[in-house]
This record gives sequence, structure tokens and C-alpha cells, in this order.
Amino acid sequence: MGEDSRTVEARAPRLSFTEMTEIMLPQHSNAIGTVFGGTVMAWIDVCGSITAGRHCQRTAVTAAVDDLVFLAPIRVGDIVVLKGRVNAAFHTSVEVEVTVEIEHRVSQERRMCVQALMTFVAVDAAGRPTPVPPLLPMDEDDARRHKEAQRRRDARLAKKR
Amino acid sequence: MGEDSRTVEARAPRLSFTEMTEIMLPQHSNAIGTVFGGTVMAWIDVCGSITAGRHCQRTAVTAAVDDLVFLAPIRVGDIVVLKGRVNAAFHTSVEVEVTVEIEHRVSQERRMCVQALMTFVAVDAAGRPTPVPPLLPMDEDDARRHKEAQRRRDARLAKKR
Amino acid sequence: MGEDSRTVEARAPRLSFTEMTEIMLPQHSNAIGTVFGGTVMAWIDVCGSITAGRHCQRTAVTAAVDDLVFLAPIRVGDIVVLKGRVNAAFHTSVEVEVTVEIEHRVSQERRMCVQALMTFVAVDAAGRPTPVPPLLPMDEDDARRHKEAQRRRDARLAKKR
Amino acid sequence: MGEDSRTVEARAPRLSFTEMTEIMLPQHSNAIGTVFGGTVMAWIDVCGSITAGRHCQRTAVTAAVDDLVFLAPIRVGDIVVLKGRVNAAFHTSVEVEVTVEIEHRVSQERRMCVQALMTFVAVDAAGRPTPVPPLLPMDEDDARRHKEAQRRRDARLAKKR
Amino acid sequence: MGEDSRTVEARAPRLSFTEMTEIMLPQHSNAIGTVFGGTVMAWIDVCGSITAGRHCQRTAVTAAVDDLVFLAPIRVGDIVVLKGRVNAAFHTSVEVEVTVEIEHRVSQERRMCVQALMTFVAVDAAGRPTPVPPLLPMDEDDARRHKEAQRRRDARLAKKR
Amino acid sequence: MGEDSRTVEARAPRLSFTEMTEIMLPQHSNAIGTVFGGTVMAWIDVCGSITAGRHCQRTAVTAAVDDLVFLAPIRVGDIVVLKGRVNAAFHTSVEVEVTVEIEHRVSQERRMCVQALMTFVAVDAAGRPTPVPPLLPMDEDDARRHKEAQRRRDARLAKKR
Repeated sequence: MGEDSRTVEARAPRLSFTEMTEIMLPQHSNAIGTVFGGTVMAWIDVCGSITAGRHCQRTAVTAAVDDLVFLAPIRVGDIVVLKGRVNAAFHTSVEVEVTVEIEHRVSQERRMCVQALMTFVAVDAAGRPTPVPPLLPMDEDDARRHKEAQRRRDARLAKKR
Repeated sequence: MGEDSRTVEARAPRLSFTEMTEIMLPQHSNAIGTVFGGTVMAWIDVCGSITAGRHCQRTAVTAAVDDLVFLAPIRVGDIVVLKGRVNAAFHTSVEVEVTVEIEHRVSQERRMCVQALMTFVAVDAAGRPTPVPPLLPMDEDDARRHKEAQRRRDARLAKKR
Repeated sequence: MGEDSRTVEARAPRLSFTEMTEIMLPQHSNAIGTVFGGTVMAWIDVCGSITAGRHCQRTAVTAAVDDLVFLAPIRVGDIVVLKGRVNAAFHTSVEVEVTVEIEHRVSQERRMCVQALMTFVAVDAAGRPTPVPPLLPMDEDDARRHKEAQRRRDARLAKKR
Repeated sequence: MGEDSRTVEARAPRLSFTEMTEIMLPQHSNAIGTVFGGTVMAWIDVCGSITAGRHCQRTAVTAAVDDLVFLAPIRVGDIVVLKGRVNAAFHTSVEVEVTVEIEHRVSQERRMCVQALMTFVAVDAAGRPTPVPPLLPMDEDDARRHKEAQRRRDARLAKKR
Repeated sequence: MGEDSRTVEARAPRLSFTEMTEIMLPQHSNAIGTVFGGTVMAWIDVCGSITAGRHCQRTAVTAAVDDLVFLAPIRVGDIVVLKGRVNAAFHTSVEVEVTVEIEHRVSQERRMCVQALMTFVAVDAAGRPTPVPPLLPMDEDDARRHKEAQRRRDARLAKKR
Repeated sequence: MGEDSRTVEARAPRLSFTEMTEIMLPQHSNAIGTVFGGTVMAWIDVCGSITAGRHCQRTAVTAAVDDLVFLAPIRVGDIVVLKGRVNAAFHTSVEVEVTVEIEHRVSQERRMCVQALMTFVAVDAAGRPTPVPPLLPMDEDDARRHKEAQRRRDARLAKKR
């Protein structure tokens, strides 16, 4: 029973769910007082790669940002909560969704400000792609995410042909 | 019913519980390949101030690190999970516990590597200390934490006299 | 002749072409010695926002990463060249392509390592979207880029409906 | 005469005294214009580890922050002076005091703003704790610091039992 | 024909010309809202070392800043363009000129704000100085730069004697 | 007696002497394991501007690096000590010398690795140059530095004519 056998056990999405909380400091802002897009993108990348690494149980590197939308500006002083979820596992890669929400100081209500879909590839110590565990959807939401991720992947592959 | 009345409603510790996940990059390390203490202390401060800010529903600034112990070294590539909890609320300040755990890549087991007890003060826009909501312990663990924090505070005040 | 009239003059893509050169330092790397995806994404965002800002002649903020693909890993010590081009201008937004190439130390040959398509929105001082100058394609390549960007935008709008 | 014999020679506190001067830039500030606690804590850690390393004549890593108090806020533009002193040397560790003072621009008067007591452990290349030179108090102030540090250590050890 | 023979082929200045574009963010500023000199100096060093490395076709390290003048302040939000050119190649070193220009947002006019002359040394993997390719001036401007750099070098050597 | 009268009192060089201590972390290094020139230049700029600000008793901005020489490479893990001294005060500017020394871990011997001569200009809140206090040389070394700085300034002015 070697390393390969380890990777065949399917894993539920909640095993790799990742939550990060950050506070926006002046060093993260651009010249007009809102948060510089690049800072948020770097945090999203950290959150996504931890999520992917937890599912794959090894290092996962960023392969693509398939879609990332800024829905609302983030301001200095805002608390933001990032959440990473594996939507689907393919042969050597996973699709991860990362969301960013702003939390209101007093009411603690959260408002979605960024949504991102990214692809990460599991790599061995030499940086070569390596098989990843299958994803085991546990409920309807998991199943829907899995189906939609598969459809997006099919569309991407069709575009390349 | 003004701002003051808002602050009198007691709040359960779980309302301000904060989780941060970070990955150790080479830029966080010292010359011998483990993580530079100052980086971890800066993250602990961010985690603690978000926790305190959530309880107080306003900005909270660091007043003291009462006790912070490094139990195990953190290495480049490690995933760490920070957790912040309010142990007790006093007149204008709160005691927050922040723990840092290292997560094993494959087994995902976590091992405690830093434990910290800090005091944060709620401030208004002019930086003046401001009353904070009381803490509402919900179970035995909450009650034990509250009692121990009160005892530590009494000991600190006694030492100053 | 006010501010509005200024924005109606069509501008050629070469007027906003942007080139950035960076060198990969250890602080940009992840734990396996290649460059951390988030660092590259932050640079791409800077390059794209300068490109968009030059076309719009005002501040432009990141609205979306429509597609970003990592084609090859970047290593510590590598020189990278980023290039930003406006593909198309819409009502208050532009599509910008940013490419990242690695330059070989001795031969100075360049190899594409990241390709990104992003959308930026021109904003006024209050952060409100503001009309942008039309794009004036000057040759066949400009025209092809413009057409493809328009098709991608139509596909995105169709998906939202 | 090997490495061990080197470490038995007692060293005066002034041999490891460390002074750092820093200027507070906007990148160090939090959202309310004062300096982010984590930045100051990271500087204190650098100052303390240089002080400890000078006494031990090898790398010293942070073991604990025993007590750290913020006495006054630091503002953007302030010059701060950090000073590190070894209070006591134990078997493989030292207690270091780090103070942070704000210097007034015109009068150059200094005002204490942070006081910290930290424990550092001397380590060999494999990260294992290593004996440290004894401390040689030279005057009354040195002797008082040494005695108080010993008392704090006794109290910490008593608490653990 | 070994490594040495490679370095004898003279290279035109345009082969190592380097352009960097950066945007001034609040994290780059000092307490009075203009850009912190150290940030600009670090960028100039990156630009110069890429320029020198391109000419030498190997790593080049900073040996000296012979002259660097700030002609105008840079403000947060400004776009700056850095340009690096090799003025002259000596035995194991090159003189590089780096200029920094501020670009006006609307007119895109550029105004010189920093001029720097630096010396870089080509090094092998062990950090030892290594012969560099001769410079091949292609036009009158190249020739003038070369002559002036030679004169400056003669003056520096004369001063040391 | 207004602000102007304050600036006429001559000040001894030791009143503005500045010492900074830093430790070289991997984030400061370049791809060949020595310290990135730009990092050292940024620290030198901080040290120089604090020194100048102390003499002028107000904010001083970098006007020029007249001469900066790297004498020895700095390696990750090295402790470095920066020292800033005012050599001469002119009408609205000062010449500051900043030296950087590497401290040997065991012997604590220091070795000069960078020497820099810089010019800083005192500015008022609007960024306009402002008269600075005269320098009061106290001993032979102070007098020699003052004379040499005056000679360098004369040479620079002569070159511009």
C-alpha cells in the first residue's frame, strides 16, 4: 500500500473548508482609499491554495483564475472573511471557490464583495502534477457545485480544442 | 436609547470567536529556517484585535500581552490556524486568548505551537477608552475561562499597588 | 468643452501600452522555491491598472479577472517582463490583457508564463463609474483583439441573463 | 579549550545592550492613524533577539513574551527608540527587557511607550537549546534587574507545578 | 571555446535597456504624503541590477551609487516610469544610469524626478567578480555617455590614489 | 522670538547621532543569498533621515545620495549596525554620513560594509525648504568632517555651473 493508494480515498468538501479573517490596513490600500485589488487577489490565492492543499494532502500550486469578480469596494478598517471550498476534483487538479465578505463592525452582518473560481494542481516534490483524491459530495449543495464545476471544465476544454 | 445602551447587552463568547488560516512563506522565516517570532506575534495581534473588535463592536487597540509562549517551532511550508476567543470583559477592556496550531499536511492533525493572553481596550474615534459589552458565559468552559481571567486581572492589579 | 468632451476622443492601444520588469526575490517565493501565485497576481493587477488608467486618463479599479492561466513556474532569480494592452473599451470599462514572460539570463529569450484578461472600471473621485474614451484599433492585430474582447463580453452578459 | 569553555565566561549586560531607531511610516499604521500593535511587537522581537544573540554569542529564538504593556499610542511620523538589555541568564535562556520610547521632534525629549519582558533560548544549528554564558552584573541597577528576573522566573516555575 | 569567450562579444546598449512602471501606493509614502526616499532607491536598485545583468548575461551586484539626485517629490497615486541604460563597461563592472519620471494622469506628459548613476559588478556563483562584455556604442548619444562615464571613473580612481 | 530664532542655535553633531541595529532575514536577500542592495539602501535612507531630522528638529527629505559604496557583502543572519552623523549644515540642507557595519556573532567584532554620504533638506508642512541650525563642531574629528563636507559641496556646485 504505497502513496497512490492514499490518494484514492474520496474526501468530503468540509474536510478542506478554509476560513481566513483579515483586517484592512492602510498598507493594503490604493491611492483612493479603497483596497488595492492585488492585495485581495494575493489573499484569495493563499486561501485557495490552503483549501486545495488540504483536499490533496500535499502542496497545490495555482494553475488558473477562471473567474474573479469584485462586487463591492473594501475600505481601510474593514474586517474581511475569506472562505475556500473545493467544488470538484479532477485527475491532478481541483476547482476551488473562494469568497470574500465584508463584516459590518456593529451589526456583524456580512456582505459578499469578491467571488473567485480557481484551479489548483497538486504537485510532488519535483513540481510534477500528481493524482488527487476524488471529492465526495455529501449533500445537495455539494452535488450542485460539483456538477457546475464539471460543466465549466467541459466548456474550457471545448474552447481549447 | 443612545450608544451607551447598546453596549450593555451581554454577548456570548462564540459571537466574537475568530479563525485565521495562514501559510508560512520564506519571507516569514528567520536565518535558521523556522518562522521569525515577530511575524507570528504580528498575526496574533491581528487575530486578537479582530476578536476584541467583534465583541466590543468597535475598534479595539492592543493594551498588553500578558503572556505568550512558543511551544514548538513553525517551519516554512507549514499551515497554521489561529483562533481568538474573548475570555472576559472588564469595564473598557477585554482579555482575549489567541492560540496558534500547526496543521499536519497529510493527517491534518493539529499541534498547539503558541498560546497567548492579551488585553485590548475599546476606543472611540478620538482614541479614548469606551465601555464594552459584558461577556455572557454560555457553558462550563466559558465560565472557567472567565473566572481564570478575572483571577489574572486581580493578580495584575495587586502587583501594581 | 468640459470633461465629458475630453473622453470622446478615441485613443490607440499603443498610447496605453505598459511594460514592467521585475526580478524574483526569495520574499516572493512559496515553500517549494517557485514564485507564490499571489505575488504574480498582485503585479499583474498593478500592470493592468496602470494600462487601464493610461487609456482612461483617470484612476481605474479592478472589476474582474476574467481568465488568468499559469503556463510555467517562475523561479527565484528569474527576470520577468509584464506587458499590458487595452483590448477593448466599453461604456465605463476596458478589457486589458496582461502577459508575463520569463527572460533567459544568457540568451535573453523570453518564454510566456502567465496570460491574463482583466476588466477595469474608470472611476471619479467619489468612486463612481465614469465613461471611458473609445479604443481606436490601428492595425489587424488591434482589430482582432477588439473583436475577440467584444465576443467575450457578449458571452459574459449572456451568461448573466 | 572547546566551545563549552567559551560559554562559561560571564558577560556584563552592557556587552549585549542594543539600540534600534525607527521612524513610523503609514505602512505601519492601523485604520485609526496610530501604529498597529503587531508592527511594534515585531520590532521588539527583533531588538530582543539581537540582544539575546549578543549575550549568547549565537542564534537565540523567542520562547516567551512574559509581559508587554503599551503605555502610549505611537503616531505616524514619530521617531521611536528601542533598547534591549539582558536582565538575567539562566541555563539555556535569558530574560531580556525591551523598552520603546517616542522622541519629540523639537525638544528630543523621550517618553516611554512600551515595556516588554521576553525570554529567549540559545540554540545550536539543529535548533537544540544550548548553555548560555552567565551574566555578570556590574552595578546596583544590574544587580536589581537580575534579582527581579530571578524572582519572576521562580514565580513562573511555581505556577507550572 | 568556454565561458570566457562568450563574454568578449561587444553588446549594444539597447540590448540591456530596461523599463519598469510602478504606481505609488500609500505603503510607499512617508509621514508627509510624498514617497519615502528609500522606496524609490530600492526600485532604482532593482532597475539598475536588471539592466546590468542583461548586459553581463549573469548576476550583477550593486557596488556603488555614484550620484543620485531627487529633482521633484513623488506623490501617492503617481505613476512612475524607471529606465535603465548601461553607459560604460569596464573590466568586471558597468556604469548604469537609472532615471525616474512621473507621468501626468491626463496629458501623460513625463517629468524627470530622479537621476542616478550606479556601478554594478558581475559575479560568478561564488560571488567573485567576473569579466563583462565590452559595450558597443551605436550612435552619438551612446558615445557621449560612454566618454562621460569613463571620465567619471578616472576621477574616482584619481581620488582614491 | 518666533520659529526662525529657534533655528539659529548651533547644534553639536552628537545631538543628532543615530544608531540602528537590524538583523538580515531571508526576505531581505537576493537570489544568490547575499542582501539585496535596495534593502540596505532603504535602511540607510531611514537612518540618514532620522539623523537629519534630529539636527533640523523637523522633517528632512532625501535630496541626494552623493556617494554610497558597498565594501563587503552582507549575508542572511548577519547583524548590522547603522550609524548616522551630520557632517555639515548648509542653508536649508545637511550632509549626513551613514555607515553600515557587520557584527561578528561570536567575537562581536565589526567590519565596515557600506559607507554613504547623503544630502537631506529640511522642509515645512507644505514641503518647502526651511533654514536649518548651524553645526557646532566639538572636536578635531567634527572639524575635519565639516571641512571635507564643505569641499565636496563646493565641488558639486562648481560642476553644475
